[in-house]
Amino acid sequence: QKRYSITLLPGDGIGPEVISVAKDVLKLTGSLEGIEFNFQEMPMGGSALDLVGVPLPDETLAAAKHSDAVLLGAIGGYKWDNNAKHLKPETGLLQIREGLKVFANLRPATVLPQLVEASTLKREVAEGVDVMVVRELTGGIYFGQPRGFRIDENGDEVGYNTEVYAAYEIDRIARVAFETARKRQGRLCSVDKANVLEASMLWRRRVTAIAEEYPDVELSHMYVDNAAMQLVRNPKQFDTIVTNNIFGDILSDEASMITGSIGMLPSASLGSSGPGLFEPIHGSAPDIAGQDKANPLATILSAAMLLKYGLEEEDAARWIENAVLDTLNKGFRTGDIYSTGTKLVGCKEMGEAVLRSV
Amino acid sequence: QKRYSITLLPGDGIGPEVISVAKDVLKLTGSLEGIEFNFQEMPMGGSALDLVGVPLPDETLAAAKHSDAVLLGAIGGYKWDNNAKHLKPETGLLQIREGLKVFANLRPATVLPQLVEASTLKREVAEGVDVMVVRELTGGIYFGQPRGFRIDENGDEVGYNTEVYAAYEIDRIARVAFETARKRQGRLCSVDKANVLEASMLWRRRVTAIAEEYPDVELSHMYVDNAAMQLVRNPKQFDTIVTNNIFGDILSDEASMITGSIGMLPSASLGSSGPGLFEPIHGSAPDIAGQDKANPLATILSAAMLLKYGLEEEDAARWIENAVLDTLNKGFRTGDIYSTGTKLVGCKEMGEAVLRSV
Ligand SMILES: CC(C)[C@H](C(=O)O)[C@@H](O)C(=O)O
Ligand SMILES: CC(C)[C@H](C(=O)O)[C@@H](O)C(=O)O
Repeated sequence: QKRYSITLLPGDGIGPEVISVAKDVLKLTGSLEGIEFNFQEMPMGGSALDLVGVPLPDETLAAAKHSDAVLLGAIGGYKWDNNAKHLKPETGLLQIREGLKVFANLRPATVLPQLVEASTLKREVAEGVDVMVVRELTGGIYFGQPRGFRIDENGDEVGYNTEVYAAYEIDRIARVAFETARKRQGRLCSVDKANVLEASMLWRRRVTAIAEEYPDVELSHMYVDNAAMQLVRNPKQFDTIVTNNIFGDILSDEASMITGSIGMLPSASLGSSGPGLFEPIHGSAPDIAGQDKANPLATILSAAMLLKYGLEEEDAARWIENAVLDTLNKGFRTGDIYSTGTKLVGCKEMGEAVLRSV
Repeated sequence: QKRYSITLLPGDGIGPEVISVAKDVLKLTGSLEGIEFNFQEMPMGGSALDLVGVPLPDETLAAAKHSDAVLLGAIGGYKWDNNAKHLKPETGLLQIREGLKVFANLRPATVLPQLVEASTLKREVAEGVDVMVVRELTGGIYFGQPRGFRIDENGDEVGYNTEVYAAYEIDRIARVAFETARKRQGRLCSVDKANVLEASMLWRRRVTAIAEEYPDVELSHMYVDNAAMQLVRNPKQFDTIVTNNIFGDILSDEASMITGSIGMLPSASLGSSGPGLFEPIHGSAPDIAGQDKANPLATILSAAMLLKYGLEEEDAARWIENAVLDTLNKGFRTGDIYSTGTKLVGCKEMGEAVLRSV
């Protein structure tokens, strides 16, 4: 009997609903694979702000660090939108990424055959899209120093941030990306703005150097503006994309929306050791919170990534992935992916359907 | 008889072909409106590198500064791709933007009814899209200091850039954007990353302050990652977008590709005074250069923007815009926008068709 401890961070909005469903799916899958999970729920985001006044309580970070993997629901909401920066739910998210040192964010954007119609792209463009965006998550302009505000010589206010990458940061994310591409179609596209930015010039130079360790992976480079175009023009040209924190934020969201079903998309954030952080890419959707309308599949698939990338329990992960596909094949749909001829269900019922399919 | 001096910068690749056609269209339109143009061709980009060893010769910048408007073809090519930064064609482009102080880059992305099918988006999503992206062009991370490379405490190489905005830079681009929105549908969406970046927090604060001068314009704010999604999900929700240099680079290219016909899209770069810089948004397309295959319509429409925004010759601008629509209605298409049932023509023939329609 294997035992893992999992920190659950339900967070805000629809977070608690989708986490509750994903927890049940993890439990059942575990029981089939001889795995026992020890779950611990901790506050984070807006709910932590309301409870103890900070978006990431020390106890939450400590619990996360001491567990084998962390599953997060969603954070944020109108209520905290005008808070000062250190009191924003988003700041808690940046703090836990930094605290767990999860520098590699894996964000798949896959168009499932069952959901091609959900994409705003023409069928022939959307069909078969399967992109993995590997985003650097603990460096670059998100964390770069110096940053802040100052008054310049003319008495004018100035806001500034620093985009900064050290070679070791680029090397380690490049290795994760090459490893990822190797397990997929073996094609890696590194995205930068090396025609303008020094940070990107170093990025391109290091990625090119690391490529020598992976002769079996085909490396190409693309400028970020062109990548934003190519994702719309022909997303199928991409297998694995690696890019920095801010470009990854933008491009991974663009790629997600190309699938048309962001309620389906999971993510994994990994470090070199220690627990990974797994979460759906969708937000906390405060407008439908508590109404049993949320799509729990992105969180369920995040639990699958947790098993695969976090615990190396690939068999258990596959149980979940297959159960999700089976549930879709049976026609179950939450509102966000509903189309005529399918069966509209709520969050709980979708969870039950997946449980029956495991 | 009005007289204007126009600096033509044909540049590289297909640049000379499309500029030659646009020049003829300007001449004819001028003759109909009692305008005489005095054209001066100057080297820039890769061709200037080959000729005199720099991407923007002093004489070219001086000529541009002393003219009433500047029309640029395209720059760049494989040949110069591995040049050192100060010897890249792109560096010439950044230098002329800085030299002419053209801080406001207007990039329309319009889906013409005649070309809806060119978009990879479904007809109902693409139809009627008409977005104007107002991009800050002479500030932010493109020009911010400090920038460069250094060796850190651990002996590791580091590349860095500075994203920096002063209040006055934000105020002036915001005013251009509000004025632009006012002449359109009166809706302005400011795009930033104010949940993470201080430079964006100042951006949002200043844009909000300037909004008080424009009570008739409806202002909204959106995070850049969400904007990248929303452009794919429902581009029709946008009227005018204002954003910083790097986000504008990415989002305006994404918006262009949503139209599916980037061979059609012009741009204008304007300062507070002095000549504006007008250019098609497409690149130099070295693979089809010299083959009379290029689509000259983006450059012709850039000439129309030159008349409208650069010289305030709105009537002459309208002649050109109508001639382009008329030419499309007659079925003329270059290869990039060809579809069965239309008439495939080369660059010159397309130019002649437009001349006949003026
Ligand atoms: C909420 C925000 C700080 C975050 C980010 O920008 O990283 C989000 O957009 C994401 O992609 O996880
Ligand atoms: C060529 C490059 C420097 C330029 C930019 O990034 O501004 C281009 O992409 C553009 O958008 O005009």
